[in-house]
Amino acid sequence: MPPRYARARNRMRARYDIETIHAILDHGLVAHVGFIIDDRPMVMPMAYARIGDEILLHGASKTRIARLDAVPVCITVTRLDGIVAARSGMHHSVNYRSAMIHGTARRVDGPELDTALDAITDNLLPGRSAEVRPMTAQERKATGVCAVAIEHASAKIRTGPPVDDEADHGLGMWGGVLPVTTALGQGVQDAHTPDGVAEPASFAAARRKFA
Amino acid sequence: MPPRYARARNRMRARYDIETIHAILDHGLVAHVGFIIDDRPMVMPMAYARIGDEILLHGASKTRIARLDAVPVCITVTRLDGIVAARSGMHHSVNYRSAMIHGTARRVDGPELDTALDAITDNLLPGRSAEVRPMTAQERKATGVCAVAIEHASAKIRTGPPVDDEADHGLGMWGGVLPVTTALGQGVQDAHTPDGVAEPASFAAARRKFA
Repeated sequence: MPPRYARARNRMRARYDIETIHAILDHGLVAHVGFIIDDRPMVMPMAYARIGDEILLHGASKTRIARLDAVPVCITVTRLDGIVAARSGMHHSVNYRSAMIHGTARRVDGPELDTALDAITDNLLPGRSAEVRPMTAQERKATGVCAVAIEHASAKIRTGPPVDDEADHGLGMWGGVLPVTTALGQGVQDAHTPDGVAEPASFAAARRKFA
Repeated sequence: MPPRYARARNRMRARYDIETIHAILDHGLVAHVGFIIDDRPMVMPMAYARIGDEILLHGASKTRIARLDAVPVCITVTRLDGIVAARSGMHHSVNYRSAMIHGTARRVDGPELDTALDAITDNLLPGRSAEVRPMTAQERKATGVCAVAIEHASAKIRTGPPVDDEADHGLGMWGGVLPVTTALGQGVQDAHTPDGVAEPASFAAARRKFA
């Protein structure tokens, strides 16, 4: 039996050390980015990357990312590890690791833009930026990226089995965890890929990252 | 070859029909919920369920969910389907389905609370609420749930291969999609499960939902 907290009421742990937070950020594919528009909250999924203590965000369009310039944002990256099946509805839970970053967004331009875009591509597919052709001046103009320096960060991590009421342990019921994983398959090539060209090496690197 | 948009510049589609939005909501496990605290955005992962045109949110604590009473929230549920590997860094993308809901949260109490909690449990594990013991009066008091009537909803869906520049099609490079799926494994039982008790039927139902 693995080590357990004898009296754990709740297996949720808040963490503030930067190594834990970086590890969660570096293992995600999509961030949920919160910001305020007309006094209302907005939450959008975005591709991202971490460079040091900054998060780079890729906007679907230059217009959209422009809205994020000089405004407070909250960036949350969540990885789901399991569904926790307890003996009562109340103690059902999920095992997950989630990092929440607060900071202020700024537009990225100039030479920094290439580094930022390469990092965002490589966060999806490690090493991919070295496999593709270089960016053109026109593409640089059309691309919107912003950077958010981490001003405040926290992580929430839940692991392990359900925490049932003592009285429910004798019910004779199954209790435990249904594991959830992110699975990356085999690449599906498009119509412009010549016969015999192998899937890029970055795909295997991505599968290793999530294995 | 599957049907393709001959001149698709962008394979991202905005959708507003309620069937598409409900389907995305009903296929998610965790929602990212945005709200405003002290003029700053916050984005938290939460277990949830949909009943009709309302989203039910489960707070980790009664205190936390109380902050959501009578405030505007944005609920985003995202399912990642693939990483789109183009021939240029710029045209890299992700295939995903994301629903974004805007509404105002209200506290759920009384008899409605049981229905809400059962729905949230069943969204994680279909049919699970009928497998566990009934909720006690004390548990009802300790549990925080809020409901958000859908005031505005939209979906973003990207599917299919990369949309490369015409000039890049002749590069002889591999282009296509690395599929991403959510995989549910076999249940891992805890120390209080008697020998010979089978994994609950709701686990198989959850695996079917994500197959």
